[in-house]
Amino acid sequence: MSIDVLVLNGPNLNLLGTREPGVYGRDTLESVEKRTQEVAQTLGVRTTWQQSNHEGTLVDLIQEARGTYKGIVINAGAYTHTSIAIRDALKGVGIPFIEVHISNVHAREEFRAHSYLSDIADGIIVGAGVLGYELAIRILASRLMDPPKLA
Amino acid sequence: MSIDVLVLNGPNLNLLGTREPGVYGRDTLESVEKRTQEVAQTLGVRTTWQQSNHEGTLVDLIQEARGTYKGIVINAGAYTHTSIAIRDALKGVGIPFIEVHISNVHAREEFRAHSYLSDIADGIIVGAGVLGYELAIRILASRLMDPPKLA
Amino acid sequence: MSIDVLVLNGPNLNLLGTREPGVYGRDTLESVEKRTQEVAQTLGVRTTWQQSNHEGTLVDLIQEARGTYKGIVINAGAYTHTSIAIRDALKGVGIPFIEVHISNVHAREEFRAHSYLSDIADGIIVGAGVLGYELAIRILASRLMDPPKLA
Amino acid sequence: MSIDVLVLNGPNLNLLGTREPGVYGRDTLESVEKRTQEVAQTLGVRTTWQQSNHEGTLVDLIQEARGTYKGIVINAGAYTHTSIAIRDALKGVGIPFIEVHISNVHAREEFRAHSYLSDIADGIIVGAGVLGYELAIRILASRLMDPPKLA
Amino acid sequence: MSIDVLVLNGPNLNLLGTREPGVYGRDTLESVEKRTQEVAQTLGVRTTWQQSNHEGTLVDLIQEARGTYKGIVINAGAYTHTSIAIRDALKGVGIPFIEVHISNVHAREEFRAHSYLSDIADGIIVGAGVLGYELAIRILASRLMDPPKLA
Amino acid sequence: MSIDVLVLNGPNLNLLGTREPGVYGRDTLESVEKRTQEVAQTLGVRTTWQQSNHEGTLVDLIQEARGTYKGIVINAGAYTHTSIAIRDALKGVGIPFIEVHISNVHAREEFRAHSYLSDIADGIIVGAGVLGYELAIRILASRLMDPPKLA
Amino acid sequence: MSIDVLVLNGPNLNLLGTREPGVYGRDTLESVEKRTQEVAQTLGVRTTWQQSNHEGTLVDLIQEARGTYKGIVINAGAYTHTSIAIRDALKGVGIPFIEVHISNVHAREEFRAHSYLSDIADGIIVGAGVLGYELAIRILASRLMDPPKLA
Amino acid sequence: MSIDVLVLNGPNLNLLGTREPGVYGRDTLESVEKRTQEVAQTLGVRTTWQQSNHEGTLVDLIQEARGTYKGIVINAGAYTHTSIAIRDALKGVGIPFIEVHISNVHAREEFRAHSYLSDIADGIIVGAGVLGYELAIRILASRLMDPPKLA
Amino acid sequence: MSIDVLVLNGPNLNLLGTREPGVYGRDTLESVEKRTQEVAQTLGVRTTWQQSNHEGTLVDLIQEARGTYKGIVINAGAYTHTSIAIRDALKGVGIPFIEVHISNVHAREEFRAHSYLSDIADGIIVGAGVLGYELAIRILASRLMDPPKLA
Amino acid sequence: MSIDVLVLNGPNLNLLGTREPGVYGRDTLESVEKRTQEVAQTLGVRTTWQQSNHEGTLVDLIQEARGTYKGIVINAGAYTHTSIAIRDALKGVGIPFIEVHISNVHAREEFRAHSYLSDIADGIIVGAGVLGYELAIRILASRLMDPPKLA
Amino acid sequence: MSIDVLVLNGPNLNLLGTREPGVYGRDTLESVEKRTQEVAQTLGVRTTWQQSNHEGTLVDLIQEARGTYKGIVINAGAYTHTSIAIRDALKGVGIPFIEVHISNVHAREEFRAHSYLSDIADGIIVGAGVLGYELAIRILASRLMDPPKLA
Amino acid sequence: MSIDVLVLNGPNLNLLGTREPGVYGRDTLESVEKRTQEVAQTLGVRTTWQQSNHEGTLVDLIQEARGTYKGIVINAGAYTHTSIAIRDALKGVGIPFIEVHISNVHAREEFRAHSYLSDIADGIIVGAGVLGYELAIRILASRLMDPPKLA
Repeated sequence: MSIDVLVLNGPNLNLLGTREPGVYGRDTLESVEKRTQEVAQTLGVRTTWQQSNHEGTLVDLIQEARGTYKGIVINAGAYTHTSIAIRDALKGVGIPFIEVHISNVHAREEFRAHSYLSDIADGIIVGAGVLGYELAIRILASRLMDPPKLA
Repeated sequence: MSIDVLVLNGPNLNLLGTREPGVYGRDTLESVEKRTQEVAQTLGVRTTWQQSNHEGTLVDLIQEARGTYKGIVINAGAYTHTSIAIRDALKGVGIPFIEVHISNVHAREEFRAHSYLSDIADGIIVGAGVLGYELAIRILASRLMDPPKLA
Repeated sequence: MSIDVLVLNGPNLNLLGTREPGVYGRDTLESVEKRTQEVAQTLGVRTTWQQSNHEGTLVDLIQEARGTYKGIVINAGAYTHTSIAIRDALKGVGIPFIEVHISNVHAREEFRAHSYLSDIADGIIVGAGVLGYELAIRILASRLMDPPKLA
Repeated sequence: MSIDVLVLNGPNLNLLGTREPGVYGRDTLESVEKRTQEVAQTLGVRTTWQQSNHEGTLVDLIQEARGTYKGIVINAGAYTHTSIAIRDALKGVGIPFIEVHISNVHAREEFRAHSYLSDIADGIIVGAGVLGYELAIRILASRLMDPPKLA
Repeated sequence: MSIDVLVLNGPNLNLLGTREPGVYGRDTLESVEKRTQEVAQTLGVRTTWQQSNHEGTLVDLIQEARGTYKGIVINAGAYTHTSIAIRDALKGVGIPFIEVHISNVHAREEFRAHSYLSDIADGIIVGAGVLGYELAIRILASRLMDPPKLA
Repeated sequence: MSIDVLVLNGPNLNLLGTREPGVYGRDTLESVEKRTQEVAQTLGVRTTWQQSNHEGTLVDLIQEARGTYKGIVINAGAYTHTSIAIRDALKGVGIPFIEVHISNVHAREEFRAHSYLSDIADGIIVGAGVLGYELAIRILASRLMDPPKLA
Repeated sequence: MSIDVLVLNGPNLNLLGTREPGVYGRDTLESVEKRTQEVAQTLGVRTTWQQSNHEGTLVDLIQEARGTYKGIVINAGAYTHTSIAIRDALKGVGIPFIEVHISNVHAREEFRAHSYLSDIADGIIVGAGVLGYELAIRILASRLMDPPKLA
Repeated sequence: MSIDVLVLNGPNLNLLGTREPGVYGRDTLESVEKRTQEVAQTLGVRTTWQQSNHEGTLVDLIQEARGTYKGIVINAGAYTHTSIAIRDALKGVGIPFIEVHISNVHAREEFRAHSYLSDIADGIIVGAGVLGYELAIRILASRLMDPPKLA
Repeated sequence: MSIDVLVLNGPNLNLLGTREPGVYGRDTLESVEKRTQEVAQTLGVRTTWQQSNHEGTLVDLIQEARGTYKGIVINAGAYTHTSIAIRDALKGVGIPFIEVHISNVHAREEFRAHSYLSDIADGIIVGAGVLGYELAIRILASRLMDPPKLA
Repeated sequence: MSIDVLVLNGPNLNLLGTREPGVYGRDTLESVEKRTQEVAQTLGVRTTWQQSNHEGTLVDLIQEARGTYKGIVINAGAYTHTSIAIRDALKGVGIPFIEVHISNVHAREEFRAHSYLSDIADGIIVGAGVLGYELAIRILASRLMDPPKLA
Repeated sequence: MSIDVLVLNGPNLNLLGTREPGVYGRDTLESVEKRTQEVAQTLGVRTTWQQSNHEGTLVDLIQEARGTYKGIVINAGAYTHTSIAIRDALKGVGIPFIEVHISNVHAREEFRAHSYLSDIADGIIVGAGVLGYELAIRILASRLMDPPKLA
Repeated sequence: MSIDVLVLNGPNLNLLGTREPGVYGRDTLESVEKRTQEVAQTLGVRTTWQQSNHEGTLVDLIQEARGTYKGIVINAGAYTHTSIAIRDALKGVGIPFIEVHISNVHAREEFRAHSYLSDIADGIIVGAGVLGYELAIRILASRLMDPPKLA
């Protein structure tokens, strides 16, 4: 039986693949979803993908995840650095989650160095490109089977 | 033909598995090395593992990596937060590297939130436990075949 | 004739009572609303309760309060610490408002110590539990009858 | 049987009502005490009021409260922002206490935004005028009957 | 043939003209729009005006501007100081934009001194009143004909 | 009858057009003056242009503006960020003034983000190139006829 | 008829003249008082001198000054930098006061650079030695006759 | 002949041993005094113990120590972090003093990390429990015999 | 024989008395000079007054003071907060100087709280109005006769 | 049976006694070791002394202390302020340790005020000269017999 | 053929040699100029020396250097730390320049640690005494022949 | 007779010349040593060159320099910004030293702007390329003959 995982993408991630393909490649969020789901399946994970530019909608989606999903992969985009509401929602529902950033946020503007999610995340993947989604799912797959945590 | 990757571990990581097994599990650095190497092999990666408590030795090892290794996985431990010398060495040799932290450094003391390596890393894995080494190798394996980078 | 007061609740307050009942009790936002309304009535106050996870919706609701409500009780949740838009809305409509926090925000993460609402509020209740809503209504009831302010 | 509560007022609160009556009203600390005690009685609370301009005396009074009072309402005035000694005394005796400020300290000088008492208080009332004392007693009355705490 | 420009207004700007007319005048956003459009037309610019209190909606509108608009005039109101999502959207679509503030944000609260948009804007107009919209359009009109930039 | 406006340029603005013409164009301060004056005339404004590399001379010129000029357009260059004396002179003479920066100061070194003039200016134009002078005159022309100010 | 002025000295000023006479001279607070009073008399000022090491006592003395004294000269010593209570007392009684420091506090430890009294003082004398008391009285004598204030 | 040393204890240290005996043990300040005096005697030191919750009283006691005591052991409690007056008194009387803290102040709230006494102390003992008093006396005993200081 | 003292006034002080006479009085710098000189004469001091809006000129004047003046009274105006050059000149010539500010700089913008002159001044007079010049001369007169300094 | 304690000295402490004997005395690290061991023996403690200028070697020595030593006395010298690796090693091995500084680090450069060891130390001795080693051993001797801790 | 280099000296450097000869020696700026020119000549460099206390004059001199000088040696004195105008002039003219400080600015007041020139300088000499001018010329001589730069 | 000078190079300086020769030239540390020694000889200086990636080894080398070397030239590389141990060693041995940086550290990452060596150095050369070593030796040669220091 497969584990259900919600993959949440925040603001502007819907632009993926349609802007500057020379730089970012032609990977759209849809193609990433498709490819990641294939790998996920081999790990016994079934993923549902959602994207929104609205902070409130992301909070709604996280709240509604209770009862349905065993894990969350979240790339909160810009809200990573400004949203305490998303942090509170994630903490409130108590579902293990992995924070993902496609690009290396530490190599960009200084205000991207701080995340409201990191200190309560169950794992963080930064700068691994779209591969990050797959790696996040690998962490969840591993965690949801054996809970031992290493400090 | 397999790709050669150096896996560098910094101060106190040699204590892994021998302290507080109830909390950290019985995984020693050696057992992690062994298990990770097996997965690496299936990805076409051959890994060499080194550990040192000495900042200078880590710098030496990075410098000597030139010509031998195509990628570096580094868990610099405490030196992550204090060593500009290791940063300079990594930048100097120009080998792609992935930064790994077993525990979630953002959930610990505030001084662990800053890394001298992150902004020049090719990927960062935080808080994924010892699985982080494997994930780092997956990023390198993927990168060393297709260089496209997503900002 | 009773005074109309809007009671606004921000993100994640809809989770009240449904998460960790052993810790937070079984009080849902609905039951708090009901109980508070009863006390309010005895003070000549009629309350309308709204909750939203959306910053923009909270701004909309505050703007629409003009002409209908004589006072606002607001527990802006996480938006307390990040939303200048809600501050501007409250200042824009010029309706007296009381800021309420169920828990003691000063005993939690440091970023909760700052509120964008406090310096323009007509009263602040922190850490009094759900009783805070009733106390806020008591302040408004008292204020809307006799305006004398003590610096 | 009534609960005994100590109401402590810090420096300069003895000036209440005698300076600038046009602005602050003619309420002296004595008249506030009288009026608040009447309400308190209806809640089953018996209050004792003390005021001092001396930090050390306030520390003495808090220490002596042990064994006699079940709760403390404290308006530490200027010492709120400078006295770790009063904080330590309150923590030392372990009596639940409510922090009260008549005016909105957040709307005044920046140094009044920080309180050494808030993070260990059982409730905080700011800017509710002299009504704040009554509300503080309501919180204590409620707490001393049912301890459930809401984070 | 005229150039199409999107004029975006953020939270609470819909209140313009309806609050405190003695202070702000009787100019509503609609009347400003009308008057500005007349001047714009003489400059060969056709403007479309949008207002929203929702950060996510502003992000949506900016994303949808691609292909339709050659320039954006944005008065992001309070979101100027808190929204990285709007910044990312503007940077993502790559449409030249002018930042406008009706009042002098530097003469108000300190937190209004910082803007997440300024360093990537193609021009900034502050404190020129509602005339700012017209001036912003003049910059765009000038820019969209001759791109020379002066550092 | 035309309005007299003083256009003040600070240090190094005399280099305009003579350095790096490929980047900055061939616009010298003289040609900008000429072109701007033509537009100004159509707005009923007569401009006098002054440039100095000396902080004290700029202070002198502002003081002497009293009685002669109804408005000042000032591009204080580097002194924007360091001169309280110019600020005091502008405040002292009480003539409405518009602050202009040709380039986007927010996109350059961090120390250019702060201006000693902005919070007392009657309008600020940043990054609009040499067009900024014209826009500044438009604000003054508009202001000197109808004083309504929008906060 | 002479004006009554209270001269208040804070903690450790009672040590004046008795410690390190080689450095500080043999002027005791008593001799300073005597000599200053003689000059004061020639200015029509009658001074009363008080010293205390207790913050609360200084607050008490300031409060009691109402009705008796037309001006206060205060050298609050160490409390200058730590006492908001003394500030509040001075503001509360509304008596014009001059802040005096015998030594140059700006040439000593950094924490002596900030004073809780300066921004509400009617004059400040620093580093003029014991002559400062006389100068302070000269300001008060001048002020209590002609109130014109120069910003 | 024995050396006279004053042992000063600040606010709340009189609570020692009477609160939470399970945690702090049953050692009262009196029993600590007794036991420490016995050891002191063997070192040729005679100690006098004083405790006060009043900053001013502590200043008084330090001033009065001149002529009587050759050394001071001071645990200023909360005043350590807030009292410049006590610092000035200690510096004023010029008696060598040792700063003692029973608990590890660096492991508690951040505001306890700074001491106004440390940089002028002749020795500092932190976190050694009540044994700290004895150790402080050992330093004084050693110092008052042979002055050589090691930087 | 009289002592020669240079009285230096910085930027914008030449505006004294000619702007806002209702607020600042009709005292021009000239009338202040005249009146102060009369008092100075009675103290055996001969004053020379200079004013400049130019930082460099003030530096020149200070350098040229060597050999001619025994003391300097300086109101550096805005340069107080920005000029290290004037500080260096004053330190370089080694003439005792008194820093004067007519208004209370601590009651104005925050950037006026810091002075580059204060820590090397022989006395500081703030907020005493134009009387400050006379008081400064009194300090110099006193100092140049008896050098004892009180810390 | 005696308790084994490791006494670790960090960089430059090997210079002790050989530089500036007029200032630091002729005590070398060896003579301090000898004298301290004699006192230690009377307390039932056997000490082993190590010194290294290498951070990594200090980490190695701490790791190797497990199983052999019951307590550590550490004077980490300059590494106190820069080494997280030593902190991690000490925390990792879990052996109680006392932090010692011969001189008063709070009276020297500001960067010596922070220690990476203090908040996890079991006791801290500062500025007691070489006597500090003996006092540290006294704390360990006392602790290793009776663990009660006083906060 | 010799290279022309401008040697610029800022405020107060004209005092060199005439103040405190016991400390600074009898080297005047003129004698330094003479001696340095002799060495310069042997390196094929012809130097022109200018000194001014006026920031604006220094800006003028730098601007006028274009076309005449191939390199600039600048000791901007106090303006190093406060003048963005000089920085802009140096950047504007694009002439290679070496920053010189006679004394060690890092060993003096903290505000001398920051220079507005350093990050755009082609070399920096600090604390080498008047020899620094010669060394600066050596760098320019070397640079103006072979441009290779080492990062 | 020649003066002996130790030239110390820190971490990663051994990579000089072997990485990116197109950018850094083909100068290895060996060739720089050779060329510099030739010039040094003409100045009567004999140099010994050492390089290490180990902080502790650099400390050892500095300690061992006592008695053998009259001056030190140090390019501590990354340790410049992190090593208090090297600072202490240099201060401990009391040998005059010159700090050298090949590149302009002020034009790179912000953390390179601070040096733990600068305030105690006898001269600093930044950004002069490998010529810096020669210049440093020139300062030492000059200093070791005539000690006059210019502040």
